Amino acid sequence: MLKVLVWNEFRHEKEMENVREIYPEGIHKAIADFLSCEDIQVKTADLSKEECGLTKEALEQTDVLIWWGHAYHHEVPDEIAARVRDAVLEGMGAIFLHSAHHSKPFKLLMGTSCNLSWREDGDKERIWICKPSHPIVQGVGRYLELPHEETYAEPFDIPEPDQTIMIGSYEGSEVFRSGCCFYRGNGKIFYFQPGHETFPTFYEPAVQTIIRNAVYWAAPTYRRKLECPHIEKIQENSI
Amino acid sequence: MLKVLVWNEFRHEKEMENVREIYPEGIHKAIADFLSCEDIQVKTADLSKEECGLTKEALEQTDVLIWWGHAYHHEVPDEIAARVRDAVLEGMGAIFLHSAHHSKPFKLLMGTSCNLSWREDGDKERIWICKPSHPIVQGVGRYLELPHEETYAEPFDIPEPDQTIMIGSYEGSEVFRSGCCFYRGNGKIFYFQPGHETFPTFYEPAVQTIIRNAVYWAAPTYRRKLECPHIEKIQENSI
Amino acid sequence: MLKVLVWNEFRHEKEMENVREIYPEGIHKAIADFLSCEDIQVKTADLSKEECGLTKEALEQTDVLIWWGHAYHHEVPDEIAARVRDAVLEGMGAIFLHSAHHSKPFKLLMGTSCNLSWREDGDKERIWICKPSHPIVQGVGRYLELPHEETYAEPFDIPEPDQTIMIGSYEGSEVFRSGCCFYRGNGKIFYFQPGHETFPTFYEPAVQTIIRNAVYWAAPTYRRKLECPHIEKIQENSI
Amino acid sequence: MLKVLVWNEFRHEKEMENVREIYPEGIHKAIADFLSCEDIQVKTADLSKEECGLTKEALEQTDVLIWWGHAYHHEVPDEIAARVRDAVLEGMGAIFLHSAHHSKPFKLLMGTSCNLSWREDGDKERIWICKPSHPIVQGVGRYLELPHEETYAEPFDIPEPDQTIMIGSYEGSEVFRSGCCFYRGNGKIFYFQPGHETFPTFYEPAVQTIIRNAVYWAAPTYRRKLECPHIEKIQENSI
Repeated sequence: MLKVLVWNEFRHEKEMENVREIYPEGIHKAIADFLSCEDIQVKTADLSKEECGLTKEALEQTDVLIWWGHAYHHEVPDEIAARVRDAVLEGMGAIFLHSAHHSKPFKLLMGTSCNLSWREDGDKERIWICKPSHPIVQGVGRYLELPHEETYAEPFDIPEPDQTIMIGSYEGSEVFRSGCCFYRGNGKIFYFQPGHETFPTFYEPAVQTIIRNAVYWAAPTYRRKLECPHIEKIQENSI
Repeated sequence: MLKVLVWNEFRHEKEMENVREIYPEGIHKAIADFLSCEDIQVKTADLSKEECGLTKEALEQTDVLIWWGHAYHHEVPDEIAARVRDAVLEGMGAIFLHSAHHSKPFKLLMGTSCNLSWREDGDKERIWICKPSHPIVQGVGRYLELPHEETYAEPFDIPEPDQTIMIGSYEGSEVFRSGCCFYRGNGKIFYFQPGHETFPTFYEPAVQTIIRNAVYWAAPTYRRKLECPHIEKIQENSI
Repeated sequence: MLKVLVWNEFRHEKEMENVREIYPEGIHKAIADFLSCEDIQVKTADLSKEECGLTKEALEQTDVLIWWGHAYHHEVPDEIAARVRDAVLEGMGAIFLHSAHHSKPFKLLMGTSCNLSWREDGDKERIWICKPSHPIVQGVGRYLELPHEETYAEPFDIPEPDQTIMIGSYEGSEVFRSGCCFYRGNGKIFYFQPGHETFPTFYEPAVQTIIRNAVYWAAPTYRRKLECPHIEKIQENSI
Repeated sequence: MLKVLVWNEFRHEKEMENVREIYPEGIHKAIADFLSCEDIQVKTADLSKEECGLTKEALEQTDVLIWWGHAYHHEVPDEIAARVRDAVLEGMGAIFLHSAHHSKPFKLLMGTSCNLSWREDGDKERIWICKPSHPIVQGVGRYLELPHEETYAEPFDIPEPDQTIMIGSYEGSEVFRSGCCFYRGNGKIFYFQPGHETFPTFYEPAVQTIIRNAVYWAAPTYRRKLECPHIEKIQENSI
């Protein structure tokens, strides 16, 4: 049984009528709904909770953390962002969705600005599969299509991904590395670009398939802090 | 003074009126023309020459080899393809243009099929810069635009590039990793997607800028065969 | 049930008394013995078989190919080496052991000379784990120790590995990237340095653990030739 | 003229007799001395200076920053560490020496713990060259030897380097990725392991050669903040 924690700012849904109509109980709830199954137990947390719902205990009991955030990244305290980073380095999987490219934990893990170019014209997007054998894109076909998405465009200031598995394009011809895998410490990280709050992206079957696949891919097989131990010289006769 | 050898199949230009009109003296000549300058000495070679013009001596005197080929890859003898690969591994730079993705030397260096999806509808292409600080894309801006190009689309079966510096998109929304850098042995390799024979791509200033930049980037600072030497155990008192 | 094919030159064991004493039925048989279990079905093949035992059918029925070769690489016909490469690109896993760094299929897949420095003084080797969370090194500890091994030393002329998971050192202080993972096409490749024919390396429990782990790691979840299809432009109204 | 800023904690030299004997004016001064030449202008800074000598202006006038720190990483304020990181992302080169693996700017740029195993027995170290054609190792030979160094051992918790160019080994057989290159944002980063304060490592000619080479390698050709701009859809008739 995989334990997933879906974290969401959960502000736009409360403040903006057009977002609430799409996600009346929040983006986290929509994600939890399609993920929950016999094999996956899903919990949720958001900014309004104490310690953002990201206590040490909550993270220890999480195999894969899914993160959606947009306009309130700065309200996540630095120490909680560092705690999330440390949990990933110990082995917890992490999936960062859409504007979580600017979330504190993602930026800490990448070490770069994670800046990109953007516009909000509701373009149709096609996301093309570059690595058809990667476990995250199984069941998707050559591409997935989203009737409307916010446009995210290169240059995307990230380290060269360990694997670039999807590239999106928009009506305006912009391109973006929409699906990227990173290994950091003992953890696996997946960045996935779709998911603007004003479009029903998380109801798209192909998006759901990819996020579900990514949960299995990111699940830890090993979880331990990489320490900085003082070691002893191996004595030859100890062999 | 950098020594560049531009290799071209030089068949379409002879056999097809519409190609000859664009490149009356051959694609290699068009490339040689814009590259030649005080700092760069350019020679050319093609399939019709003895040993394809790729003798051991010719390669030894080449700093950077530029390769255009399309329909007659199979006419390059295996041993000459292997000789080119070996020269790259020793340190010669190599730039593979457009359909040279299926040339024997490129496939040998990649180790993969280098297959891709394609269609020939003369779409407009925009090639977006992912790494604005990379020396190859200096002077280009956010993107370059080609009024008509053959469409090359993902999945492109190459090893994960050491650096992905450009991604192209087409009117049909397809995407392609149009500018990729690889380090192999002591050599540097740049694959650049534009350059279909029926379009005047090599007269585009931005394409010329990129190829010229790539010549400087790929130039060897070191050229030596990586051998497989038997070594002696270092004696402690030899230190 | 994973299907493994262990390929061995199987010459040293016939020609050299000191090798035969260690591996009386061949290195392939020693590997098959420790791998065989309820989950893994093992077959073997060698140079003496028709088509080296590497027929199209044999490869199609293989999930993971393990390769040991040393002095007779050249006796494997080029077309069979290319067939093995193609099977890997389609998704078959491949584990190359010790002197298989110079086998034709490995060199074809890497695209480089795969040269290295070497000496044969029977040094003790310690192989240190760089990525303790990688599935291939589970159950091994900080390092494994081999009382005697042939020394393989840097520079090792390979493309930058997708993951460097082990580095070996020898009594003479040389170092070598002893465990390297590569993704090529749809296939996974693991190179593992130990296994000189005159030492009983394949009876070492830690070596067996690593090879067994690597079989599971390299097993394909997907197997399909990456073609080079002509595609049609997606019509907007087809969406 | 390249502008280098050498930053040093400059505490051990003041507090410990045995360090002061080796570096009477500080490690930074020893590095400045061998780097200074017609092509390279060197300045120094340390913890005792206002803002650690790392004001915005100082960084803007620096092409390559060299960093040595050990026991007082925590005294560098977070905002200054972030300022250094940002300067690197904009294009400033950075060379982190020895125990700077735990400096705040290096950890911020890597995103990982940068932990490693260590012991302080004054072992002899040999550092082996893995990429003999890399500009940083020109003039060094097969390896460099240090009579005494602190032992740094794998696992080293860093992202997979863009290029692993040196691996060190010690009398105790431990190994370490001693020379690693990373590209982050518009900047180039080199981590180099030697340089413990109680040994005269920075007087070794080969160490000096490598650091000098690294200055040239890391020098920016481009320096600009990668922003996160709102963009406009390209109008077709604007082409």
